[in-house]
Formats: sequence, C-alpha cells, structure tokens
Amino acid sequence: MKQPQIKPVKRRSNCPVTYTLDIIGDRWAVLIVRDIIFFGKSSFGDFAKSSEGIATNILTDRLKRLEEQNILSKKTDKSNQKKFVYSLTEKGLDLLPIIVEMILFSEKHDPDTVVTKSKLKEIKLNKAKFILELQQKHKTHIEK
Amino acid sequence: MKQPQIKPVKRRSNCPVTYTLDIIGDRWAVLIVRDIIFFGKSSFGDFAKSSEGIATNILTDRLKRLEEQNILSKKTDKSNQKKFVYSLTEKGLDLLPIIVEMILFSEKHDPDTVVTKSKLKEIKLNKAKFILELQQKHKTHIEK
Repeated sequence: MKQPQIKPVKRRSNCPVTYTLDIIGDRWAVLIVRDIIFFGKSSFGDFAKSSEGIATNILTDRLKRLEEQNILSKKTDKSNQKKFVYSLTEKGLDLLPIIVEMILFSEKHDPDTVVTKSKLKEIKLNKAKFILELQQKHKTHIEK
Repeated sequence: MKQPQIKPVKRRSNCPVTYTLDIIGDRWAVLIVRDIIFFGKSSFGDFAKSSEGIATNILTDRLKRLEEQNILSKKTDKSNQKKFVYSLTEKGLDLLPIIVEMILFSEKHDPDTVVTKSKLKEIKLNKAKFILELQQKHKTHIEK
C-alpha cells in the first residue's frame, strides 16, 4: 500500500527554530513522543490506540521518519520476535523540555486542558528536576 | 483569490500537548512568532521577506488564524493608516519558553544551526531571566 509521505523538508535557513520544527512541526510525531514518555507506550499497537485516533498508514510513516531523525530506536521485542518495540534515543529524550513547556502553556491558556494536579505541582516546583528524573526513568526502563 | 486554509482542528482529547500543537504544530505560525520576538518584525511586508520564503497567501491565512487564536493583535499603523502592524499578545508571549527550548535542542543536535554565542550564553546562564526580559522588552515596545 502506498504510504502518505510527508514531504522531505528542504532546510531554508540555519535558524535553530526551523531545525526543531522539522521534527515537532508534525503533530503526530509529538504525540508519539508524548505516548512513550508519559504513557509508557512502546509498540505500533499501543500508539494506534491513542485517543487522537492516528491512521495506521500515517503512524507507519511517522515512526519511520522519527527513526531516521534519530528520535526513536526500534528493536525486536525480546518476548516476541515478530514484534518491534520503540524507545526514545538520547536525542528524543531531549525533546522533553519542549513538551513540558507546551503543557504549561496549555494549562495556563486552555480551560479544557486536563493536567494531573500532582504532576503540575511537581513541574512548577522544580522543572529541571522533573525533566531529568523522567528522562532517567525512561533510560533505566530501556536498559532493563 | 481563494486562500489555502488549514483545516480547522477538531479537538480529539483534553491532553495539554494537543492544545499547544493546534497553535505551534504549523511551522509558519512559529516562524511568524519568532520574527516578531527575535527580529522585531511587525508588518505583512516584513514577514514576507523571511529567509524561509513564506507564500503571501499562506502568510495571510496564518496571520488571520494567529489573531483568532489570540496570539497576535493587529492594529493600524500610527504613521500609515493603510498599513497594519502585528504584535504578540500576553498569550503569544507565553510561547517564548517553548521557542527557547527549541533553540537549545537545535543547538545541541544540529551541526548546521547558527545561534549567536552571546545569546546562547545568556540563555544558559539564566533561562527564566532571559525569557522574562525579552517578554518585557516586547511589551514596552508595544506600549510606546
């Protein structure tokens, strides 16, 4: 089946913002990263079940692209050789500070946004610590 | 002329990440915000000249959408009644922490990214101070 590819991005400037936009300018890419880091998802089936309802052909395309961009790492599942599991690379984990700022923005400006109070308190108390601990947790989980 | 509209986004979850993605998930929207805050741009003509080469019909659409989302405020230019000037609202200025994290991400992972060394030093030394001062500077500039 032909996949709906997103056009390869032609870099038009050396601006630091455009580089990151090439990764997170696609909403599905960010939601996949969110699903891994906040909801512990790791497989194609897990991602496909997200409440935003990503189409499976788009999901296939975005996973491939995130792997090419070195945001995701794909491995065979130890308990099922036919299944792949995805995890965030070091570079992928470095997207977390951006996502945390996105959460704070929504929490401030969107009345419909739902953020767990304890999580929000933790972020506001010490943002850097929250980010570092979450990154560390993810790394430890992969090494297991 | 018919404008290429971006589809109105149907909110599919109350996740704080999706709300922000409805605003910054479009690369042109972020570049307009960047142009205002980092390069002091304010008019349609200014934005159209960006090195990324935005098409004028897309620019018209994105400016309208950012105004609807209360990110931008549009006023008649005091010195030229036929011209409009755009500035960031309080909500628009709250996107700055996200953009700063995008800059740091690129600076770390993209060898082609160019960031002024003095600016980078300032951000790394005290990120919160850098953001607050830039937001304050923009507000003072508008009030003048």
